[in-house]
Amino acid sequence: MPKFNFKDYEVYYEIEGEGRPILFLNGIMMSTASWNTFKNSVISSNTLVRVDFLDQGYSSRMDGITYDHNLQAELLHALIEHLELKHLTIVGVSYGGEVALRHALYYPKDVERLVLANAAAWTSNWLRDIGRAWNAVGKTLDGDAYYDLAIPVIYSSKFYQEKEEWMENRRKVLVPLFSTKAFQERMNRLVNSSESHDIRTEIHKIKHETLVISSLYDCLTPLCEQELIVKELKNAHHVILPHCGHASMYEDPLLFISLVLGFANAKDTKFVI
Amino acid sequence: MPKFNFKDYEVYYEIEGEGRPILFLNGIMMSTASWNTFKNSVISSNTLVRVDFLDQGYSSRMDGITYDHNLQAELLHALIEHLELKHLTIVGVSYGGEVALRHALYYPKDVERLVLANAAAWTSNWLRDIGRAWNAVGKTLDGDAYYDLAIPVIYSSKFYQEKEEWMENRRKVLVPLFSTKAFQERMNRLVNSSESHDIRTEIHKIKHETLVISSLYDCLTPLCEQELIVKELKNAHHVILPHCGHASMYEDPLLFISLVLGFANAKDTKFVI
Amino acid sequence: MPKFNFKDYEVYYEIEGEGRPILFLNGIMMSTASWNTFKNSVISSNTLVRVDFLDQGYSSRMDGITYDHNLQAELLHALIEHLELKHLTIVGVSYGGEVALRHALYYPKDVERLVLANAAAWTSNWLRDIGRAWNAVGKTLDGDAYYDLAIPVIYSSKFYQEKEEWMENRRKVLVPLFSTKAFQERMNRLVNSSESHDIRTEIHKIKHETLVISSLYDCLTPLCEQELIVKELKNAHHVILPHCGHASMYEDPLLFISLVLGFANAKDTKFVI
Amino acid sequence: MPKFNFKDYEVYYEIEGEGRPILFLNGIMMSTASWNTFKNSVISSNTLVRVDFLDQGYSSRMDGITYDHNLQAELLHALIEHLELKHLTIVGVSYGGEVALRHALYYPKDVERLVLANAAAWTSNWLRDIGRAWNAVGKTLDGDAYYDLAIPVIYSSKFYQEKEEWMENRRKVLVPLFSTKAFQERMNRLVNSSESHDIRTEIHKIKHETLVISSLYDCLTPLCEQELIVKELKNAHHVILPHCGHASMYEDPLLFISLVLGFANAKDTKFVI
Repeated sequence: MPKFNFKDYEVYYEIEGEGRPILFLNGIMMSTASWNTFKNSVISSNTLVRVDFLDQGYSSRMDGITYDHNLQAELLHALIEHLELKHLTIVGVSYGGEVALRHALYYPKDVERLVLANAAAWTSNWLRDIGRAWNAVGKTLDGDAYYDLAIPVIYSSKFYQEKEEWMENRRKVLVPLFSTKAFQERMNRLVNSSESHDIRTEIHKIKHETLVISSLYDCLTPLCEQELIVKELKNAHHVILPHCGHASMYEDPLLFISLVLGFANAKDTKFVI
Repeated sequence: MPKFNFKDYEVYYEIEGEGRPILFLNGIMMSTASWNTFKNSVISSNTLVRVDFLDQGYSSRMDGITYDHNLQAELLHALIEHLELKHLTIVGVSYGGEVALRHALYYPKDVERLVLANAAAWTSNWLRDIGRAWNAVGKTLDGDAYYDLAIPVIYSSKFYQEKEEWMENRRKVLVPLFSTKAFQERMNRLVNSSESHDIRTEIHKIKHETLVISSLYDCLTPLCEQELIVKELKNAHHVILPHCGHASMYEDPLLFISLVLGFANAKDTKFVI
Repeated sequence: MPKFNFKDYEVYYEIEGEGRPILFLNGIMMSTASWNTFKNSVISSNTLVRVDFLDQGYSSRMDGITYDHNLQAELLHALIEHLELKHLTIVGVSYGGEVALRHALYYPKDVERLVLANAAAWTSNWLRDIGRAWNAVGKTLDGDAYYDLAIPVIYSSKFYQEKEEWMENRRKVLVPLFSTKAFQERMNRLVNSSESHDIRTEIHKIKHETLVISSLYDCLTPLCEQELIVKELKNAHHVILPHCGHASMYEDPLLFISLVLGFANAKDTKFVI
Repeated sequence: MPKFNFKDYEVYYEIEGEGRPILFLNGIMMSTASWNTFKNSVISSNTLVRVDFLDQGYSSRMDGITYDHNLQAELLHALIEHLELKHLTIVGVSYGGEVALRHALYYPKDVERLVLANAAAWTSNWLRDIGRAWNAVGKTLDGDAYYDLAIPVIYSSKFYQEKEEWMENRRKVLVPLFSTKAFQERMNRLVNSSESHDIRTEIHKIKHETLVISSLYDCLTPLCEQELIVKELKNAHHVILPHCGHASMYEDPLLFISLVLGFANAKDTKFVI
């Protein structure tokens, strides 16, 4: 279990394969294991780096500690130095994309290219209050209620319907987890760590080549949030997945990983047309 | 308090003004009072008819009774006969639009034109499970949690943010209500009455001139649901409100009532171009 | 033939019916006759006012004269004074919408509400060069070439295909017209009068309640142009017609006239929600 | 100059680099040279194969010969056999994408994956008549008129405006070419070869993993055309470029080549999520 020390905490990471490194940053409910399905694809051409944020997976639990995205961004900086990653592409999904934006802003030399999937430059009142509902229901330890609250909204209705059997299996796996105090305490802190997120006035300083992935049916970080990012970033490239919800990486995994690897590995970034 | 008897129940309605009648059907959390702001606009040219569905507003509570949309559609038929409404336009929002579709299918002669705002032809697994989350949280009588669960998702994030003060007032009004057993029992039954809703294979039989209003940021009845309706209906006219969420009637009231009154009162429906 | 004198020119107009007046402004190839199909609908509730711009229909030909939108906007001002129109709604389609914007900017008291369908706040290089193609082909007096150049692009591909017979009739009517020097000289000047159109930096001053109608498949004034207008105008209300092209008034006439009459006649414009 | 004989004709092609082959198929006005800017990117990981269709670039002129997409698809089959290409990805832009669809339908074993950018499954009346305008103006040998007719409509208005200088250079290069009989005769035949294109009832038989690239501002093969393809194809993956027009490959070259290389080189196509 590869870990490194960051401040008083342990951070779990995985590094596999060879070639230009790609660091995958988890959404709020994800962990390093969430990327397993993409492992073969990534290591066929790149070094795959994964990390659990504080309060995720095998990284330290933050019982009794209040923190925000800044701490997670510092953690990334420390990890990148620790692993001596060069020519790095960072791929961040939702929460991970939000930390990736902040990290790129404060540590611009750490990273060469960015892929932001279903992320936002700030936590609006709207998203804040949705998060508060999650936390309130989480505290009841009613796993079924939490599932019905937090899971459908992650997917497009089309995917949720077509993958009925798969969703039912997800329910069987997730409800017991959602019913535990341990899980809910971590989720609570992770949600709280996002409340203050707002770098709208600063992101124009990010000059990295950036791929911005939106989904038409994203009900957590809706299209207007990615449009805001694209409008501010000098080197943004924007795609919309018209059939997906917030969890584009699971809803069309081939398309997701094609976008990531294509963008991370593009030899040239400027073209004479 | 005008009421009429329908089967064993009392149904509350209001009828005001003169001219071609327009019957407004409430969304699931609404009541006849929800249309007050539009009263002046409607009665300046039309007869305004409002009704509380069973388990809404001043209509009968259905304690201990299981029902579905069919009963609400029958209720509409009885109301229209009772009031002897002719050349009627029915405007249904969300739940109301879904009952309106069913009613138009089974009682086509009752109605001349339809306006469906943010409605769907069926309850997908996705929407069903969202409803189950509402019911689970409702049972806890935690009004704040219920608000954070059910209210943000009704609005576009843009509206929710820009109307911060108004939303905080909504919270003050709604949280006490959401904390009552009486409200939650009715909401629970209304949500349950929608679970079996599915008229996808039948709606092609609806031949009425129909205005279908979609919102780009509708997170309960997303755009694909209205596209499905438009594809099936012979005489559908489709508009998308690119700045709104599920509650388009509150998010852009002038646009909403313009659409309704313009469509209800259009003298011709066929044009030689 | 009602005409009035404006500077050295004659301006043809029609005024019919009673009630709050609505002035319809033609697109570049249209004339007062283009609104005939809507006459019954409009005069059932409103005073219908139509006008041919200079170089359109029965208004003066501008042989040898160079002009721009300012002159057409002055003409509107003179017409409104001449007819003593009060509480006026102006509905402008494409070219007509562009003149309507300029007129509202310079003569704000002339008008109460605006409806802009498929219009833009400026003539981009892109639209300028499309106009130049029209003029170049116009000069050849090859009516079929002009038709194939200028007509398909006005409609959505869906409408053009579904209305095959109607389009073929349009061809029979329009090709002889497009083959005349008289028509082409006027079109040439009208196109040229638009080249300098650019009020992007000023339109934020327009405070009128404004309905902005966009079409998803508008290939002359694409969606981004109406988004620009909506972003600048304080009181804009935006709808997208997802099935239409540039000629939304012909592609869905019931929807178009419902939007116009609903918005023009809405009693209230502010709502307490 | 590598050529091979196909029936009575010479076909020009280029093959460079190593690795899984990617065959790029030109849009109607393009040639093998149009892909030069992507050469470095492609050959860094793949074998780059380019080909001029009949009547394009260095391939045979078809003076006096009538043909359709079937002949171009046969040509592809012959080329693939000639070069013994295995595990092939075909990338087709517009005309090239349309031939690619037909080729995949009739020679499914030739190809493993498909990328279709801004292509359609048929030539609607609408697109047919636009093509006829091109041909009519082409015959006049007025290069400027042809440019204004055919070039703006290829790009989004945003790109056309922002790249003002680049567009003016394009004009200088293209107008002389557009003024030649040789170019116009070839374009005329290429346009005519597309008129009969319609494989809407057959494309559901295509089972290849297919990436479908749409642009929101595509005024030649609008979004609805790619939606039609996606609806029919079993293994379609759909992205929309919200800032681009028909020429997405030039408007966002980094995004275009990322999509192509990412999709062509994805190791897995099925994922256990």
